[in-house]
Amino acid sequence: MRASRFLISTLKESPSDAVVISHQLMLRAGMIRKVASGLYNWLPLGLKVLRNVEAIVREEMDRSGAQEILMPAIQPAELWQETGRWQKYGGELLRVKDRHGRDFCVGPTHEEVITDLARNELASYKQLPMTFYQVQTKFRDETRPRFGVMRSREFIMKDAYSFHVGQESLQEEYDNIHATYCRIFDRLGLDYRPVQADTGSIGGNASHEFHVLADSGEDDIAFSSVSSYAANIEMAEALLPKPEADAPSQELAEVDTGEHKTIEEICAFLNIEAQQTLKTLMVLAADHSEEQTKLVALVVRGDHELNEIKAEKIESVLAPLTFATDAEIAALLNCNTGCIGPNIQNEHISVIIDRAASVSSDFVCGANINGKHLTGANWTRDIALSSVADIRNIQAGDPSPCGEGVIEIKRGIEVGHIFQLGKTYSAALNATVLDQNGKSAVMDMGCYGIGISRIVAAAIEQNYDDNGIIWPEALAPFTVGIVPLNAHKSKEVSELAEGLYNSLKEKGISVYLDDRDKKTSPGVKFADMELIGTPHRVVISDRGLKEGEVEYKFRKDKDSQNVKADDIEAMLLKLLGK
Amino acid sequence: MRASRFLISTLKESPSDAVVISHQLMLRAGMIRKVASGLYNWLPLGLKVLRNVEAIVREEMDRSGAQEILMPAIQPAELWQETGRWQKYGGELLRVKDRHGRDFCVGPTHEEVITDLARNELASYKQLPMTFYQVQTKFRDETRPRFGVMRSREFIMKDAYSFHVGQESLQEEYDNIHATYCRIFDRLGLDYRPVQADTGSIGGNASHEFHVLADSGEDDIAFSSVSSYAANIEMAEALLPKPEADAPSQELAEVDTGEHKTIEEICAFLNIEAQQTLKTLMVLAADHSEEQTKLVALVVRGDHELNEIKAEKIESVLAPLTFATDAEIAALLNCNTGCIGPNIQNEHISVIIDRAASVSSDFVCGANINGKHLTGANWTRDIALSSVADIRNIQAGDPSPCGEGVIEIKRGIEVGHIFQLGKTYSAALNATVLDQNGKSAVMDMGCYGIGISRIVAAAIEQNYDDNGIIWPEALAPFTVGIVPLNAHKSKEVSELAEGLYNSLKEKGISVYLDDRDKKTSPGVKFADMELIGTPHRVVISDRGLKEGEVEYKFRKDKDSQNVKADDIEAMLLKLLGK
Repeated sequence: MRASRFLISTLKESPSDAVVISHQLMLRAGMIRKVASGLYNWLPLGLKVLRNVEAIVREEMDRSGAQEILMPAIQPAELWQETGRWQKYGGELLRVKDRHGRDFCVGPTHEEVITDLARNELASYKQLPMTFYQVQTKFRDETRPRFGVMRSREFIMKDAYSFHVGQESLQEEYDNIHATYCRIFDRLGLDYRPVQADTGSIGGNASHEFHVLADSGEDDIAFSSVSSYAANIEMAEALLPKPEADAPSQELAEVDTGEHKTIEEICAFLNIEAQQTLKTLMVLAADHSEEQTKLVALVVRGDHELNEIKAEKIESVLAPLTFATDAEIAALLNCNTGCIGPNIQNEHISVIIDRAASVSSDFVCGANINGKHLTGANWTRDIALSSVADIRNIQAGDPSPCGEGVIEIKRGIEVGHIFQLGKTYSAALNATVLDQNGKSAVMDMGCYGIGISRIVAAAIEQNYDDNGIIWPEALAPFTVGIVPLNAHKSKEVSELAEGLYNSLKEKGISVYLDDRDKKTSPGVKFADMELIGTPHRVVISDRGLKEGEVEYKFRKDKDSQNVKADDIEAMLLKLLGK
Repeated sequence: MRASRFLISTLKESPSDAVVISHQLMLRAGMIRKVASGLYNWLPLGLKVLRNVEAIVREEMDRSGAQEILMPAIQPAELWQETGRWQKYGGELLRVKDRHGRDFCVGPTHEEVITDLARNELASYKQLPMTFYQVQTKFRDETRPRFGVMRSREFIMKDAYSFHVGQESLQEEYDNIHATYCRIFDRLGLDYRPVQADTGSIGGNASHEFHVLADSGEDDIAFSSVSSYAANIEMAEALLPKPEADAPSQELAEVDTGEHKTIEEICAFLNIEAQQTLKTLMVLAADHSEEQTKLVALVVRGDHELNEIKAEKIESVLAPLTFATDAEIAALLNCNTGCIGPNIQNEHISVIIDRAASVSSDFVCGANINGKHLTGANWTRDIALSSVADIRNIQAGDPSPCGEGVIEIKRGIEVGHIFQLGKTYSAALNATVLDQNGKSAVMDMGCYGIGISRIVAAAIEQNYDDNGIIWPEALAPFTVGIVPLNAHKSKEVSELAEGLYNSLKEKGISVYLDDRDKKTSPGVKFADMELIGTPHRVVISDRGLKEGEVEYKFRKDKDSQNVKADDIEAMLLKLLGK
C-alpha cells in the first residue's frame, strides 16, 4: 500500500478520554474512531489487523472440523421467550420493535437461534457431533462502555456451538476446540493462558477462559509457579493450609476496641498482623424471608478476601449473594457491623468458616458486643467450629491446588471462553435427535467464543513501547515498511524504493511504501512507522546509497543496522520465512 | 469437504411459501433457513456461495484503489437528524433506544456515518480523491419481505463512498467503479447489464444500476437492439416518433359511449385500436392547495403507459405524484373520470401532452361530458396543443433513444447501484476540505452499492434447470463432486475416490466427496449433487472400474461421459485451468 493512497490519520496526542494504552494507541495510530459511546469506525489500518485476526480464527476453526454458518443479527423475541432469557437477560439486551410492533433483539449471543436451527435440521445421532461457527457483529448494551474496542457495545465475535448425544462426545469436542484455541492464540503470537473458569449461573460442566496476560487486564488469574495450572481467581480452589490448628497458647480475653472496627484499625490498635484476625461477613440466607430475617455468617482470615462466587454456591446462602444491612444484623445480634464475630448462637444465623480461618489459633475477632473484640480466641475451646468451606480468594504464595508449586497472580484480558452447556438450552427448546436405540434424546451442547475485536486491543496491551505499537507479525497491518528519504531529489532512492516495494508486493508480502511528498518530513514518517508498528522497516537514503547501503530496523530492536542495498530483499525474504 | 462431516439439509419438496425459483432452490438445497419474516440463517452450503461473492467483490474493490473500513451497524440518531433523514426516512428505518434512552437506528445505509468520518479525517484536497468501502450487514424493515434473500430485511451489502473536490474527479472515480463493477459481474459469470437509472429525489448527476437479467426480475430494462444502450424503463427517454402529426382526414364528432370508460371498452365499442385513442390522467398540480383545487391533465396514447417518475419531474406537477380524486375532478370539470379528454379550458387545469400523443391524428378521446367521447379529433384544428413532454414509459419496438436500433424490454434484478451524490450529504453535514486555493470547499461524493446476498439469489434465477441449481464456477460452493458407489463393498472404488479427493483438495480445489454410508442410496446422492449444482461430477463405480473408467458429467450437460480412471484428475485440472 502506498501512503499517498491510504488514509493515514495519526495523532500526536491521545484524546483525553482514552485511559488504557491500547485505546490510546489505536486512536493515535488511526485504527479506530469513535462514532458514539461504545461504537467505533474501524479505519483502513485498524481493519487490516481485525481481518488478520479473523482469517486465523477462520482457518483454525475450519481445520477443527467446525462448519461456518451465518445467523441473523436481529433475532425474534419468541426464541428468547422459550428459554426464558427474554425476561432474565438484563439491560445489555437491546430490544427493538419492528414496523409491525413485533419484538426483536439485536443479538448479544446466539444460543437460542442455533439451538432452534439444530432442532429443525438435526434428526439423528448419526449426524453428530456437529459444530457450527460464525464470525459476526454482536451488540451488548453495556452500562459503561470503556477502553475503546476492549469493552465496546458493538463488536465482532466468533461464536461456535456444538451438538452431541452424551457427555463423552461433548468432552471430546470441548478438548478439540480447546486445542484449536491454543493454535489460534499461538499463531497470533500472544502470551496467553487457558484458565479454569466458573460455570456461573448457567450451570454446565466445565469452562475455560483464554486470557491474554497484561497489567491492564480486568481479571485476576492464579497460576502455579511450577505446573501448567491456571484458573480464574473466582474459580481457583484455596486448599487447607495445614491439617489442623495449633494448640491454644493464649487465654481468651474480651478487650475494649472502642470505635476501631476495620481489620486495619484493629491491627494497628492491638499491634498484631491481619492474619491473626478473623473477619465475619453477614449475608442473607437462602431461606431468608420478609417475615423472618435469616443470615449466614461467613468467616475468613483478616488478610484474606471473601470469594463471592464460591460463597454463592453454598446451598444455605442466597444467590445472588446479598450482604445483610446494618438493620438486619442489629435485629438478630443487637450489635453493629464492626464488632461481629463467629461466636454466634442464634437459630436464624448459620456460620460458615473458611478453610484457612478454621486452622487459625489464638485469633482476634469481634465479640458481638458493641466496642468489644475477643483476643486469644481458639476454635472448639472458645467458639464452636461449625461448617468449614472454601470461600476465599486464592492469594499469591498460597500452595497451588494442583499440588505443585505456589500460586502467582497475574492480570488477564479475557479473549476467549469455552463452555460445556450440557442440556441448558437444548432442554428449554426441546432440541432432540433419535439416539442409537431409536429413542428421542435431548442433545448436549458446547459453546465457544472468541472476541475478535478485543484481541486487537489485547495484543496492543501486551506489545507496545513509548513510540507506539509493536505488532506480532501475524497481526501487523503491514509486514514491511519502506521509507525513501528525499525521493523527489534522488532517482536512485526512488527507483530502489519502488523496485523493492513492487517486488515484495508481488511475492505476497504486505508492504507499505511511505511515498508521501516532501511536505511530510522524515521525522514524521519515522514516527508514523513506529506508531503503527510495522515489524520490519527499511530506510533508503541518498547518503546510504553512496555506500551501497540501506538502513534496516526491526521494530522490537532499539537500533537499526546497515545492510547492503543489494542484499536487503533477500534478507527480508529470509526473515519472513519466504 | 466430506458429506459425512457436512450439514446436508436437502429437501424434496419446496415449502409452499417460496414463490420464486431461487427461494425454492435455496431452501431445497439447504442453503438458507428462515428464522423470522425476512430473516435467514445461512447454512454452511449457502454461506460458501456468499463468501465466494464477497471475496470477488473485495478483490476487485481493493484493485480499484478503494480502502476497506468497517462502520458500526448501530448508528446514532444525531447524524441522521443533521441530514434530515431521521424524519424523512420511512418505516424501513429500524429505530431503537438504548438503555439510556438515546435514539439509534440499525443502519440501512451509511451516508451519514461515512460523511461524518470524512469531515473529521479529511482536511485537504491533497488527500483526495479517496474511496472507502465496507462489506456489512444492513437492515431495512421492509413492509413485505419476500422471495427469500432477494428481498429480506437483513442482508449483506458492499457499500462504498468516494470523496472529491470537483465534478471532474467524481466522474473519474464513478467511471472507475463502473468498470470495477463490470469486472465483478464478469468474474461472477452473470448475464448482467449496467443501465442508466433515475437519480430520484436525492438529486445528483448520474446513476447506473447493474441488473442481472432474469424473467423473475422486478424491474423492466430497455435495451437497444443494436447498441450497448440500456436504461431502467423509468429513465429511458421516449423520442418523438415522427416530426409532426398527419393532416386530419376525419371530421370531429361527439359520440355516445354510455357506460364505456376504459380504453379497452372504448376500443371494443368503437372497433378501433388503442393507439388511435388518447387517455387523460388527472394529477394534483404543484400549486394545488386546500383552498383551490389545481390539477394537471397528463395525456398519453391509449396504448402507452404513463411514466410516473418522468411526470413527477415536471415543474407544474406535485411531487410525489398524486392522482386527483373523482371529487376533485368533478369539482372542476363537472364530469366523471371515464370521459375526461384533453380539450380543457380551465384556468385551474394545465394540460401536458406526451410526445407520441402530440403527433396523433384523427384520434378518439374523452369529451369532458358524461357518456360522451370525441372521434376524429385533431390537434390545433379541434384541440389546442399545449405543453408537450416525455411522460410515458418506453415500449418494445420504440426507436432507441441512442439513435441506433429499436427498444427491447427485459426484466432485471438490481444487484448494484452507483450514484453521483454530488454535495447532497456533504453540504448537510458540512464536510469540507481546503481546496487548491486554500479555501474551504464542500466535497463532492459518490456512492456505490452491491447487494451481496441478493447476488446469490439472482445467480440462481439465471442458472437452474429441473434438477436444481447450475452454479457459475466462481460461485459454486464446491467445484468438483465425487460420488463413489458402494464404496463399502469395493476397496478399489473407495481408494480411488479418497485418492482423487485428497489430491484435488491439496491442489486448492474445492471438492466434495459424498462419503455418506450405504443407507443413502446412489439416487439420493445424484439428486443432491445436481440440486446443489456442483459444476463437475465424477461417479466412481465398481462396474466402471472393471473397464478402467469413471463417469464424468458437467452440470450444464445433459449426458455424462466415460473417462479413463487414470486420466480423470488431469482432465479435471485442465478443465479448471490448473
